[in-house]
Order: sequence, then structure tokens, then C-alpha cells
Amino acid sequence: MGCVVDGCPPGLELSEADIQVDLERRRPGKSRYTTQRQEADQVRILSGVFEGKTTGTPIGLLIENTDQRSRDYSDIKDKFRPGHADYTYQQKYGMRDYRGGGRSSARETTMRVASGAIARKYLRERLGIEIKGYLSQLGPIQLEARDLEFVNKNPFFCADPDKISELESFMDDLRQQGDSIGAKISVLASNVPPGLGEPVFDKLEADLARGLMSINAVKGVELGAGFAAVSQKGSEHRDEMSPDGFDKNDAGGTLGGISSGQDILASIALKPTSSIPKAGATVDKAGRKSEIITHGRHDPCVGLRATPIAEAMVALVLMDHYLRHRGQNADVDSETPTIPARTES
Amino acid sequence: MGCVVDGCPPGLELSEADIQVDLERRRPGKSRYTTQRQEADQVRILSGVFEGKTTGTPIGLLIENTDQRSRDYSDIKDKFRPGHADYTYQQKYGMRDYRGGGRSSARETTMRVASGAIARKYLRERLGIEIKGYLSQLGPIQLEARDLEFVNKNPFFCADPDKISELESFMDDLRQQGDSIGAKISVLASNVPPGLGEPVFDKLEADLARGLMSINAVKGVELGAGFAAVSQKGSEHRDEMSPDGFDKNDAGGTLGGISSGQDILASIALKPTSSIPKAGATVDKAGRKSEIITHGRHDPCVGLRATPIAEAMVALVLMDHYLRHRGQNADVDSETPTIPARTES
Amino acid sequence: MGCVVDGCPPGLELSEADIQVDLERRRPGKSRYTTQRQEADQVRILSGVFEGKTTGTPIGLLIENTDQRSRDYSDIKDKFRPGHADYTYQQKYGMRDYRGGGRSSARETTMRVASGAIARKYLRERLGIEIKGYLSQLGPIQLEARDLEFVNKNPFFCADPDKISELESFMDDLRQQGDSIGAKISVLASNVPPGLGEPVFDKLEADLARGLMSINAVKGVELGAGFAAVSQKGSEHRDEMSPDGFDKNDAGGTLGGISSGQDILASIALKPTSSIPKAGATVDKAGRKSEIITHGRHDPCVGLRATPIAEAMVALVLMDHYLRHRGQNADVDSETPTIPARTES
Amino acid sequence: MGCVVDGCPPGLELSEADIQVDLERRRPGKSRYTTQRQEADQVRILSGVFEGKTTGTPIGLLIENTDQRSRDYSDIKDKFRPGHADYTYQQKYGMRDYRGGGRSSARETTMRVASGAIARKYLRERLGIEIKGYLSQLGPIQLEARDLEFVNKNPFFCADPDKISELESFMDDLRQQGDSIGAKISVLASNVPPGLGEPVFDKLEADLARGLMSINAVKGVELGAGFAAVSQKGSEHRDEMSPDGFDKNDAGGTLGGISSGQDILASIALKPTSSIPKAGATVDKAGRKSEIITHGRHDPCVGLRATPIAEAMVALVLMDHYLRHRGQNADVDSETPTIPARTES
Repeated sequence: MGCVVDGCPPGLELSEADIQVDLERRRPGKSRYTTQRQEADQVRILSGVFEGKTTGTPIGLLIENTDQRSRDYSDIKDKFRPGHADYTYQQKYGMRDYRGGGRSSARETTMRVASGAIARKYLRERLGIEIKGYLSQLGPIQLEARDLEFVNKNPFFCADPDKISELESFMDDLRQQGDSIGAKISVLASNVPPGLGEPVFDKLEADLARGLMSINAVKGVELGAGFAAVSQKGSEHRDEMSPDGFDKNDAGGTLGGISSGQDILASIALKPTSSIPKAGATVDKAGRKSEIITHGRHDPCVGLRATPIAEAMVALVLMDHYLRHRGQNADVDSETPTIPARTES
Repeated sequence: MGCVVDGCPPGLELSEADIQVDLERRRPGKSRYTTQRQEADQVRILSGVFEGKTTGTPIGLLIENTDQRSRDYSDIKDKFRPGHADYTYQQKYGMRDYRGGGRSSARETTMRVASGAIARKYLRERLGIEIKGYLSQLGPIQLEARDLEFVNKNPFFCADPDKISELESFMDDLRQQGDSIGAKISVLASNVPPGLGEPVFDKLEADLARGLMSINAVKGVELGAGFAAVSQKGSEHRDEMSPDGFDKNDAGGTLGGISSGQDILASIALKPTSSIPKAGATVDKAGRKSEIITHGRHDPCVGLRATPIAEAMVALVLMDHYLRHRGQNADVDSETPTIPARTES
Repeated sequence: MGCVVDGCPPGLELSEADIQVDLERRRPGKSRYTTQRQEADQVRILSGVFEGKTTGTPIGLLIENTDQRSRDYSDIKDKFRPGHADYTYQQKYGMRDYRGGGRSSARETTMRVASGAIARKYLRERLGIEIKGYLSQLGPIQLEARDLEFVNKNPFFCADPDKISELESFMDDLRQQGDSIGAKISVLASNVPPGLGEPVFDKLEADLARGLMSINAVKGVELGAGFAAVSQKGSEHRDEMSPDGFDKNDAGGTLGGISSGQDILASIALKPTSSIPKAGATVDKAGRKSEIITHGRHDPCVGLRATPIAEAMVALVLMDHYLRHRGQNADVDSETPTIPARTES
Repeated sequence: MGCVVDGCPPGLELSEADIQVDLERRRPGKSRYTTQRQEADQVRILSGVFEGKTTGTPIGLLIENTDQRSRDYSDIKDKFRPGHADYTYQQKYGMRDYRGGGRSSARETTMRVASGAIARKYLRERLGIEIKGYLSQLGPIQLEARDLEFVNKNPFFCADPDKISELESFMDDLRQQGDSIGAKISVLASNVPPGLGEPVFDKLEADLARGLMSINAVKGVELGAGFAAVSQKGSEHRDEMSPDGFDKNDAGGTLGGISSGQDILASIALKPTSSIPKAGATVDKAGRKSEIITHGRHDPCVGLRATPIAEAMVALVLMDHYLRHRGQNADVDSETPTIPARTES
């Protein structure tokens, strides 16, 4: 897997270790709740860094695959797995590389995490922006953001210490059923300066939605109150302002497509993986009725490893909009004082 | 208001009347449930059409404002309306045109509808694609897609004839309270050929999410099962396939970022408008504590007129991806038969 | 004719008069050496300016056509004028709007000049950049940049006062022959800061070449020594540097795709217009042998009015690269002192 | 060195050998007239090809450096070589990787050749387009396109067999002088279908100019008659048309930004390399007066190896425009017969 990060400002201190931290968080095989596939996911910086600092030219990143067992593809070679891209690739391109590991593989998200780590480091060091994700729902279990420090101390990226045993039982039951489950992930970005985002088509929330919806298995994106806004009244939804701050954050950090200085709060819905050890009806390449069981080592909940990926996409979108905003408005002096964010969560 | 539609294939029959139909559906002042502002919204085609057909060169569209009452801006000139872009524009650009009608105005959506009408006509005439939106929730009232033909026969774009009186009562109560309400809109695109969308970042669902989230007041976007997928199991969510068709449509029409031939089903959450005749706390340009009442003729539910806008955005995204797909894959012959869509709704 | 200028920084003082100055320089009918078509070319700013300053949102510009005599198109309707886009539009789109005034019309360049005037004003006021073009060759007559102040005082944009009578005689002879002639235009941009341009594909000279070659009738683009560099030796071509400045400017203002602080010097070749009152062999729509005389009021040398257009394209490219550079490198502190430009011309 | 080729249509037969052919033509060290640096330039296809055919997904290419002698950078570390990007990178980014091999290195052009080879294969196999370049001038020596088959049979990419000994003497003298020389390269693309290119800014010639001017050391680009058009009359320049073909090709293959079916004829000017074993005046990082001699193995004429690079850029631009044109106009049926090209060269 490789990628090229273009446009990174020069002078940022950057080593492979800075990137490895986030890759480690995404890496499978760390608990019994994720796939037992072992991927070292060691990143190499090929270009764009000199004497420990970014040079302003493109940063090339490479991760070599290490756990490539020889597999038997005879089953998936001629049949389309339901819920996978097999059928659509075949229809679009007239062919497909059935060995996996390609564009539709979840492995692709390593490079999102790796490049996001660079954006994140810049945002943190230069602007003080902190980006923190957490599991906000697993199947029927709702989870609150009680303690964001706890997120990295459990295999679920859960911010709610009291719910760990419930999550463990749920996942153990699921495994016995040979089934998978959906999840909801939320990401909070704090200290985002007001002004990021462009009116009309390139609104900050539009680019966040695009970035997040482009992650494999994502079926929904919300900003702030999200779908709960459907049943809110205007007097209830609008975040009132005072010199002491916004009174709450139902907007999720933007107004009219531009960051307001409130925390960016984005949530995503991840579908349950379709790769389960249960036979599913399908067709073969000739269009004949068939069925297929997806063998192999798959995550019973792809959402359990999606937190670092979602954080990375938020970081990349914020970084792009920061540079774009700075290009146009670097010398703007708004005479209006900044309203403090409300971040009591 | 003006816009330029670039890249439209030549030879499409197009007149102003073709566009006016959709503009008429969005136009305010048609029922007592929308703003009473009268906007003629007469579109003029300035270029790109010759002898009744598109020429392949950019199509310029123009709508002149007709209902421009002189207004008193003294209040909003120096104060930021909560829930509006006033504050963020000031912070981004160091200035703002407080007279409205600009980039953050809902008037901007006329051009989305107008350009969407062209995409829609092409998709319908050349590919048989039908795009139909409807109100799927208003505040607490859930609405089903019982009769899509009924949508254009009521002021709510509601597809559920039995719910009209409930909607009327709700809106009448709301008006008496001087408040506003959120809404959910769903859009169904049928007969979409398989193959539209690009892997990784430009997935069809990613561009749909971007296009829909860029509409004013949208706070969430779902595809297919959307957030309901969070509590689904894999055996439940995945749409199984047979020569007779997909068994259901929880995916919402894409697999791996590429259209599958199933109906595209996208839903959006619209927040309640913040422009209500109730005072809200705010700050003024100097950052001092203040409050403001938003006068004027505003929609109590911006979602009530959003159906044609959402349809237009879906049409534009599908059109772009159709042309892009054709550029790369015009001569692909997939040997696999197409699986029929499941469209029983 | 209309256009939209997106991304202009806010706070720039801008009025229609600022733009009109450059339009006036391009306007036809001011001397007997250009077409006698009268076009008022009055520009209107439709958006993006408030209280005399740019707001940071898109600036819409419109020029209405005033001199639209009814014409007889019967001849060009079914025949392709040699040297025109008639044949290629027909082949590309299967149709064409033969009435002219469209995408392939020289009228299109008014919007280049209008938008360039905005870029130019910003570059001059904020960065001290001056952009000055001049006629450097007309047919066989070579012209030097002796006095750039003289350029706006003669109908040829000539910077060589001693050559005016020679130019007048040449153009008078040409008119009697009923023929047209090519021209070479050079543009000099001074006080350009070092650092503009991106390595590899988006080099400053690459974007200048694209912008300039996109002007109607341009057949060649040079930077600095240009084609003269073909017969130079390395010891001769390379511009040596000292704390007092570069010793000359054969590079034309860039090194490795990035501005060096030297003057940008770009030149373009303009072909003679094919619209001359002499019959030319051609084919008709059915592919049959035919001939055509192009009537109407055409410039005998399109190069005579191209100076403001070329200046505008240079301004637009520099502006785009300035904003892009600022986005990435706004806070870079190069510890190396700037080498003065050599501008003895 | 690596690159990613996105958007290639699926189903093209492609092996590393197909790419290696063109790399071999660019490779240094094959005659005594180029640098004696040995680079194996073995390309590896990392993705996008399956069972010998392109899959429609991105094609990753990689060439590993093999001839990396340890070098002494002490001289260029703190001084700016005149005529190089050293000074401008320092000013833009505040730092630079002085070890070379990066973005401003001529090594970068290997990936242009490699990706161009893919475009070229598609264009040849699917559309019959042939792209052939040749040296058209070396210093003062003008060269004609007498025999394009001869180009690959001599170390100069010269199409004029009678001039080889003159070229050899010139280069031998130059070496003794320790100097370098400029060159002019021309590229001819035949069988290009009419219709490629977009009006106004994305004209085919504009994108050709951008692509060609982005090659290291290029200082000028011409299409067709190029700068010779400056002294042509309209009656002389315009290519007349008949059912038997165009009467000549001064336009260089486009009319109004769109290919006409004539041969595309583009020429470029390459400056003499500044890396010569003669001391040049310069400044050091602190801005102090200094001088530098560029040691190492450099080409005395960078133009001698530029032919495959220029061909590759023409191939890439044509390919992009072909796909773009097909996206919009795949189903256009122009009723006008195609006029044959005039290719007697």
C-alpha cells in the first residue's frame, strides 16, 4: 500500500514513529474482537522529509504487506459475495482482481490513517487542534463520551468505562452466532479556528461528509445534532451566542458551511460486514443462481477499528480547508472577537 | 442568481419550460405552509442551446430577482443571528454583505434546481433514470413512501395520503407557536445502471453525501439503511442476490462505491430554520452581549421546499458520474448479466 | 458575456471603473487598424463587492452585447471557414451555433481582460507587481522594449517610438492587399516575489504556457530566451547570481518551475486571422468541395489587440499561484536574502 | 521514483516490457554524448494489472535507483548553483534537500516516460494514433524530418541521416570546451481523431503547452507554424480544406482548441544545461558572494534524451482529452465526413 501526501507545509518535524502511533491504533489482531490477521503495518517515508522535517514537496508513504498467506480463491473467483464490490467491479470494468487487497479492500484505509497522522500532527502543533474519536454505539448499545482519555485504553475505542463488560458479552455472543454487527463512531475536533470552509458547494460539512462517506462500510454521516434535528424546533436547535460562548453545540461546529470555533462533531454509521461464515444467496459470473460462504479472517465489527480512520479523514479535511482558507484570507483581520466554544462533554 | 452548467452532452432537447417545471416545485408562496415571499423565478437560458438543442458548450442560466422590497437592515447589520452564517462570514472574511441574497441565502438553491433539471432530463431521456423525492419525516411524524404519484399533489411533497391532515395540524400549531421544525427528505433514483462511481475517494455515495450535505440546513445524510445499519447484523443487512434480483435494498444502491443497479436511496436531515420570531441571545460586531429577533418572511420548515433541491443534487451527482464512467469505460463489455433491482416500495 | 471570479481575497477596493480601464485598452474600433465593430464593453459587477470592497465571495461580471447587427449567416451556416473552429465544433459536438459570439469567438477574451484586471489590481496594490505587455514583432518588423510608457500612447501597443510610421505603412499596405498578418507580444511582470509555482506538473511556466496558449490564435509561447536558447551554450544561457543581482535574465523569471524574483518575461506568437476577404477552398456540411469568403468587420491583425489579453492571463496565473503558495507556505521564513532582479530594459 | 496512473481504461494488455521499451530510449549512458551515469531504470508494475490486462483501477509504477554513488555535497549544500532550482526551493520552502534526486531532478522524467508508454499503447492499439518525436535543431544545426524510421537508429533521435557526422563533430567539440548546448525537439502525432480538446481554457493546445512546458529545461512551446506564424499572412497561414484533405498543416492539428484530424505537430525549445565544469558566480545561503563549479556526470545536451519525454507528454495529454471527449460526446454522430490529414512530411 502506498500514498502520496501533497501540499504539506514545510518545516514540520516528522518521523515514521509519528505515523506509526496512529497505524498501531488501527492495526488488527490486537484483541480477540478483531480479525486475527497479523499485519505489521510498518510505514516507510520515501520522500518529502529531510533532516527530520517536511520539505514542502510530496511525502511518499509505503507499507509493505507481510501476512500474505496463500489462499484458495476458487470460490470467490467466479461468484459475487453479497454486500461486496465484486459484482459492481465486474459490471463497471468487465473484470476484477478477485485476490483482494486492492481498491475495495479495507487494507486501503491504512493509508488514510498514515496520511491523516501527518495532518493531525500539523493541526495539533501549529493550531492546537485536537481530534478525538470514540465508539458511540455498537449494535443496540448506546455509548456516551464520558471519558475521552479512556478511549485508547480498551479494544473498543469506547469512552464509557462502565459499558466495557456489556460490549464484551455482546461481542462474544456475536462470535458464537457467527454473525457481525454495525457500529456508530463519533469524532470531536476541538480548538478549530473559525473560518474554515467555503460557501455553497465546498462547505466544510460537505467535505467532511464526502471524506467520511468514502470510508468503506459507512452508510451515514451526521454533523452535530444530525438526524435528531429532524424532530427539533428552531428555538431548541439554534445555538445561542454570548461573549462567554455558545450555549450548546447542536450545529456541530459549522454555520453556513464555515467553522464557527465550536467543536466539530461528526458521526458515522458503519454497516455490519457482509463477510460472515453463513451461506448467502448470490449469482455466479454467468448470472446463474448460486450461494457462497465467505471464509477467512474477518472483523465481526468493522466499526471497532474505524475510529482512527474516521479521525484521520476529519484531520485531512480540516487540513485541506485550513490551507485553502489561509491562501485566500491569510491577512484578514476580523475586528470581531472570537466566541469561546462550549466543550463540556 | 446565475449559474453555468459545463459538460452537458450535445443534442439534448432543452427549453426554458423544461427547467421551469422543477423551479415551480421549489417556488415559495404556493401554500400557507411556506414563506409568502413571491419570487417569479423565471429562468432564462443565456447560452449553450441552439435551435432547441444543447450544443455541448456551457449552458448559462439566469434568474432575476423580482420581489426585492426595501428592507430595514439596521438590526442585522451589527448583530449576528444565531444559527446563521453571519458570524462565520465575519470571522472568515473580516466583512459580510448583511443584505442577504448572497452565497448563504436559500435563494442560492434555485440554481441547484435549475441545473439539476437539465441533468434529470438527460438521465430520464437517455438512460430511463427516474429521480423521485418525498418528505419522509416532519418533526415527530414519520411518513412512508406509499404513493410517489401523490408527492406533487400536496404542499408537503408527502407520499403518504393518509397523513396530510396530521401534517396540516402540526404546521398550523407550529405557526401559532412562532416556531420552526426540522424534516427528513428521501430521494429514490431508479433504473440507475451498474458501474457509476469510482473506488476509494470518489465513491458514488461519497459524492452524493457531499452534494446533499452542501444544501443549506442539511445536518445528516444516509444511504440505504443509513443509521439503522448500526443495529443490524450482517446476516440481516447484506442484500442477497439471485437471477431474479436483489432480495431487498439495505445498501441503498451501491456496493464498494459503485452503483449496483439497485435503486439509489438517499435521505437527508434538515434542521429547523433559526429565523423565528422569538428573541435569541447573541453578540454584536464588537463582541458585546445582545439579542435579536429575526423578522421577515421565513419558512417555518425549510424541509418543506427541499425535496426538489435534494432531487436536483442527486441528478447532478449521477450525471457527473455517468459521464466520468463513460469516459473511462464506454467500450467495456461485462459478460455478466445485470441483476434486476428490487423496487417494490 | 459573463464570468465568475472565485477565490479573490476580501478587502480589495474594487469598482467597475477599475476593470473598465483594461477593457478600454482591448476595445475594438479605436483606430483604423482594428475592426470597426463598436462594442461598448461596459462591465457590470453583479456580486462579490460590498461597500466598494471585495467580500471574498465570487465576483460575477457581465458585459452585454450592444452592436449586434442582424447578419446574413446563409454562407457560413453550411460551410466551414478555413482556419476557424467551424469544422472541429461540428465534428466534436455534431452541431454548432454558426451565429458566432460563442465559445470560439474573440469576444470571449473580454472576460479574460475583465477578470485579469481584478488580479492585476490586487498584485499591484498588495505586492507591488507591475505587468506590462507590448508588441514585440509585427510580421517582419522586430520591435524593442525601448519605452514601456509609450505602449498606451499608440494604437499598436508598441514600445518603440521610432517604429510607428513603419508599422502604419505596413498596416495600410496590408489593408489594400485585403490580407492579415501575425504578431508577437511580450509581457513583463516585475517585482514578482520568489517562490511562486509548484514543482513537476504545476510549474509556474507550465501554467503560464497553458494560460497564454489558451488565448485564441496563439501558436507559440516562450519564457525568457525561449527558442533562442536552442542555439545558446550553457555558459551563455545561465544567469549568474551575486548579492547585487542576477547578471541577466535569460531564464525569464523562473528556476525549476518557481519564480526567482527576476522579472517574468513571456512571449507569444499570434497567427494572422483567417478571416480575410479572399476566397478560400473548403468543404460544406455534406463534405462537398466548396469555397468561402469571410465577410464582416475583422481585425487585419488580431495581435494588435492582444496585449491586454496576454497581460490579463499573466496576472491571473500569478494571482492563482500567489494564493496557492501562501496557502502552503505563509509562515515560511527563508533565511536567505533575496537577490535583486535585473531590470535594466 | 514512483507514480500512479489513474483512469486508464480496463482491458488493455500491459506488461512491464511494454513500458521498458520507452524507458530504454530515454536511459542515459548509451552513447558517449550523454551522461555516463548508469541507471537500470527497471520498472515494476505494482497494481492495476491482473492476468496481463489493466483492471481500470490505478496503475502503480516503481523504479528503484541503482546507481547511487556516495557523493560529496559539501559544495552545493550551502551554495546555489546558477540556473538550478536550488535558490528558488530555498526561498519557497525555507529549506531544500540538496542531495538531489528529488522533485527538480531530471530523474523525475522517467515516470513521465513510463506513464506515457501506457497512454501511447492505448492510443496506438485502440485509435491507431502514432506519436513520433525527433531532434529538429541542435545548437545552430537545423534538422529535417526526412526519415522518421531513422530516429531510433542513432543516439541523437535525429530523423536526418545526412546530418549525423555534423552532429557528432559538434558534440565532440562541445565536450572539449566543457560546455553544453540547447536543442529543439518536435513531436508528430498522426491519426488523431477530430474532436479532442475543450473550448476556452482547456484547449488541446493549451494542455499540450502546459504538459510540454512542465518538462525540465523547456523554455518554449510551438504548435504547427509556431513563431513562424508571426511573419505569415492570413492567406498564407490558413490551411484550406477539400474533400481530399487539408492543403498543408500550419495549424499543427487543432482549430479553436479542438483537434481537426490533421497531425498534431508540437515543438519545444530546451535550454543548455547549467551544469558545466566552468565556475559560475553565485551566492551562498547567507547571501554572500561566491562561485561554484558543478561536478558530476551531466548531459552536455539535455535535449538529446528529451525526445521520449516529449512524446510521453503528448501521449498523456491526448489520452486525457480522448477520455474526456468520450465522456461527453460518446454518442455524437457528426453527419459531416472527416477530412483526411495531410501527412506527406
